[in-house]
Amino acid sequence: MGFNETFFLFSLFFLHISVSIAYPHSILQILPENRESFHHRKIPRDDNQYCDSWKFTVETNDAAPWTRVPSRCAAFVKDYITGDRYRSDSEAVADQSLAFAKTVKISGNGKDAWVFDIDETLLSNVPYYAIHGFGSETFDENSFDEWVDLAEAPALPASLRLYRELPQLGFKIILLTGRTEFQRNVTEKNLDYSGYSNWERLILRGPSDKGKMATIYKSERRKELVDEGYKIHGSSGDQWSDLLGFAVAKRSFKLPNPLYYIP
Amino acid sequence: MGFNETFFLFSLFFLHISVSIAYPHSILQILPENRESFHHRKIPRDDNQYCDSWKFTVETNDAAPWTRVPSRCAAFVKDYITGDRYRSDSEAVADQSLAFAKTVKISGNGKDAWVFDIDETLLSNVPYYAIHGFGSETFDENSFDEWVDLAEAPALPASLRLYRELPQLGFKIILLTGRTEFQRNVTEKNLDYSGYSNWERLILRGPSDKGKMATIYKSERRKELVDEGYKIHGSSGDQWSDLLGFAVAKRSFKLPNPLYYIP
Repeated sequence: MGFNETFFLFSLFFLHISVSIAYPHSILQILPENRESFHHRKIPRDDNQYCDSWKFTVETNDAAPWTRVPSRCAAFVKDYITGDRYRSDSEAVADQSLAFAKTVKISGNGKDAWVFDIDETLLSNVPYYAIHGFGSETFDENSFDEWVDLAEAPALPASLRLYRELPQLGFKIILLTGRTEFQRNVTEKNLDYSGYSNWERLILRGPSDKGKMATIYKSERRKELVDEGYKIHGSSGDQWSDLLGFAVAKRSFKLPNPLYYIP
Repeated sequence: MGFNETFFLFSLFFLHISVSIAYPHSILQILPENRESFHHRKIPRDDNQYCDSWKFTVETNDAAPWTRVPSRCAAFVKDYITGDRYRSDSEAVADQSLAFAKTVKISGNGKDAWVFDIDETLLSNVPYYAIHGFGSETFDENSFDEWVDLAEAPALPASLRLYRELPQLGFKIILLTGRTEFQRNVTEKNLDYSGYSNWERLILRGPSDKGKMATIYKSERRKELVDEGYKIHGSSGDQWSDLLGFAVAKRSFKLPNPLYYIP
């Protein structure tokens, strides 16, 4: 063993010790002599840490399917969604989306598409969820439809910023939502009210889509777009069912949403 | 308009006002009268918030592809990966994985499989990255291979817990790693050293896999398993390239890893 390896081993040894002292729960603490005792012990977690990790599994789709926010995490979700962190995460996603969009070679045939979901992607229903337990209550379709009919859902600022820059780069904007044709007028009214305009197409669930899983419905509609000659460069959605399946975009962008899950 | 709608509108109005005062940057603040001024303004972000949101885009694959941790976020990643939060996130993923595993109908033909990646999934290379800038430095294959040859990477406690419970539920464990056949012996030695045993198969990159993108290499090997009659119920990996592609598992579980990205 040469000098390099020896030095490497030594530095590693001292690092183990020092870091173990500095970070009591660190995985670096797992040294041969205490490995066994350490394995099955879970670290103590307060609500904030528990819920922050629950949110991690929600955003990576590890938690899917899930029905509602654990009551233990209602306060956490409220603080997140009404605070700076949600704004910051949304802006980071918009920045990544725009950075990619700027690298796309636009064909110029008018078929370069970017697909947007609507709810919790372009429009925010947080004002509704704020008076319905921030996702901790069972979803009530009737009261939600009343809220949709108001057509007053605010824009997600970061998404509006992205939405307004894409056409200048040559993209056609396609809106693909789980809302139904019956909600077309109020949806257009709300989009206009919140500052969205000039979309190429607004696709809503038709009679034949009733009861279809979102992943299937949205994949089928994307497939139709591709068959029409559209190239779907990018897709933005807060649900994995907006992004997975078939006829997927070259790049998909997952927006944060710890409020609800749609299969 | 009936009483219900009226009451709904009023409560919504007062909610807007009160929450706007409580959360200055809240999206709820976007009321008709100040929408325009608000749209393009970004909230101020300190390093912690910027890096926490950068991490969000990394874990959701919105940031892909990326080459190294932004120098601005090296301290954030160090605190995350050596602290409780990484432990907590890893345990939440293991809990979700186990919850799903317990719902699987085991065929009992010995072909019920769970696929695990190795690095940052079963074994932790944090001791290596701790002396290489926690992902903020350019990856150096030589020094990393020296570290791998030591065969002293500790186990990720949450993953070891999951690993040990799966066989009791009837799963066969397949290890599918980007490491090469030349590293088979040290890899088996390290797995044993860290408490892993009784895997059904250890699949490493062969000569024909050289230079292949991880997504392709791992999909091809999963396809071979499926062709052999294996049913891949679950898959665990810290990279999306461990989980996406074809012949994917029924449920995939993304573990946290803000240290590096593998396409």
